[in-house]
Amino acid sequence: MQVQVMKNILGENDKIAAENRRLFHDKKILAINLMGSPGSGKTSLLEKILSKLAEKINVAVIEGDLFTAKDAERIERQNIPVIQINTAGGCHLDAAMVKRAAESLNLDEINLLIVENVGNLVCPAEFDVGENFKAVVLSITEGDDKPLKYPLIFKESAVTLLNKIDLLPYTNFNLANAREDLSTIHPAIKIFETSCINGAGLDEFCNWILEKIDEVKL
Amino acid sequence: MQVQVMKNILGENDKIAAENRRLFHDKKILAINLMGSPGSGKTSLLEKILSKLAEKINVAVIEGDLFTAKDAERIERQNIPVIQINTAGGCHLDAAMVKRAAESLNLDEINLLIVENVGNLVCPAEFDVGENFKAVVLSITEGDDKPLKYPLIFKESAVTLLNKIDLLPYTNFNLANAREDLSTIHPAIKIFETSCINGAGLDEFCNWILEKIDEVKL
Repeated sequence: MQVQVMKNILGENDKIAAENRRLFHDKKILAINLMGSPGSGKTSLLEKILSKLAEKINVAVIEGDLFTAKDAERIERQNIPVIQINTAGGCHLDAAMVKRAAESLNLDEINLLIVENVGNLVCPAEFDVGENFKAVVLSITEGDDKPLKYPLIFKESAVTLLNKIDLLPYTNFNLANAREDLSTIHPAIKIFETSCINGAGLDEFCNWILEKIDEVKL
Repeated sequence: MQVQVMKNILGENDKIAAENRRLFHDKKILAINLMGSPGSGKTSLLEKILSKLAEKINVAVIEGDLFTAKDAERIERQNIPVIQINTAGGCHLDAAMVKRAAESLNLDEINLLIVENVGNLVCPAEFDVGENFKAVVLSITEGDDKPLKYPLIFKESAVTLLNKIDLLPYTNFNLANAREDLSTIHPAIKIFETSCINGAGLDEFCNWILEKIDEVKL
């Protein structure tokens, strides 16, 4: 009975996600669902890459958070259009929330829409919001055992950002192990090693996004 | 309709949690529900404090994880009785899972039961498992904005461990801000600054647990 309810909710979510996906496709918008643990560095990464990307394309951001608008305020300081979704305690964004938020954006003027999900390495992976692909941020300080412990989110994501790579010398994180586990879970996954402190990997990640935007435009 | 289902699930959970609590009380066991983000350092902290606590009292551990037994294997190496719960993708432990796991332990020989929850700063806070108190681990590398962004888990927890304090010099974490926000959310919250690398705060936390065990015994 509980399973049935859950299936209905997910079925309804998939329907709205498909509508979002069709809308983004029609508007030639690349949509990225950015996920990761609390404190993995999602918003800091966004701040860094948005300033680079905004020179070349039009970006908008949808921010998910339980109660605050702290992350949206950080994005807004860069004069990027941003909509804050507060889930009021909910542990993930769903397609209906993103649909409602997207209605407040001028989609005709956007090439890239980044949806920053609620900080959570479990639940967001189960909810399609209509994105072109999911990206997961894993900070070095979280430990190299996380891909095997939270496999779904890495299986669902086209790209993993191994973030805070500048802290590698101060941890026992084994990069080779993490890369091997990621490849086992998801052989086609793209991996970037990034740092918002020393800038490592940010240009490479931005260039990869720009390539994906070109593909969407065709 | 969806809300109603959720209420029923939580109502049923609270009933089983109350049964667990009564059982632990009768057996004079202190039960701690240990929560925190993926990679905040919960298992490493457990490894460190168990070796100290096991000299003085009998400890058992219930480990929550989505799919693996990696954390339980780490605890087992210390010859501590440990039961692994796999939630098969579920984002938190509930009271029924803990009840079933506790049935496999010899509760007559235990003074302290630590339940390590699934790595998640959102969902576990909503589910009472029958513990005496909740403890939340927040690693310095997650950022000082987390108490205000995830207030429920800090409101529900009797104690916060500001972990990986050895990494403080390499981050922009503001300790004073974090302490102030924690006090605003939960004025009575107890705070320890801990590190598994240099051992900071571990004796203090262990002594505090031993005091709580004495209270339970009375």
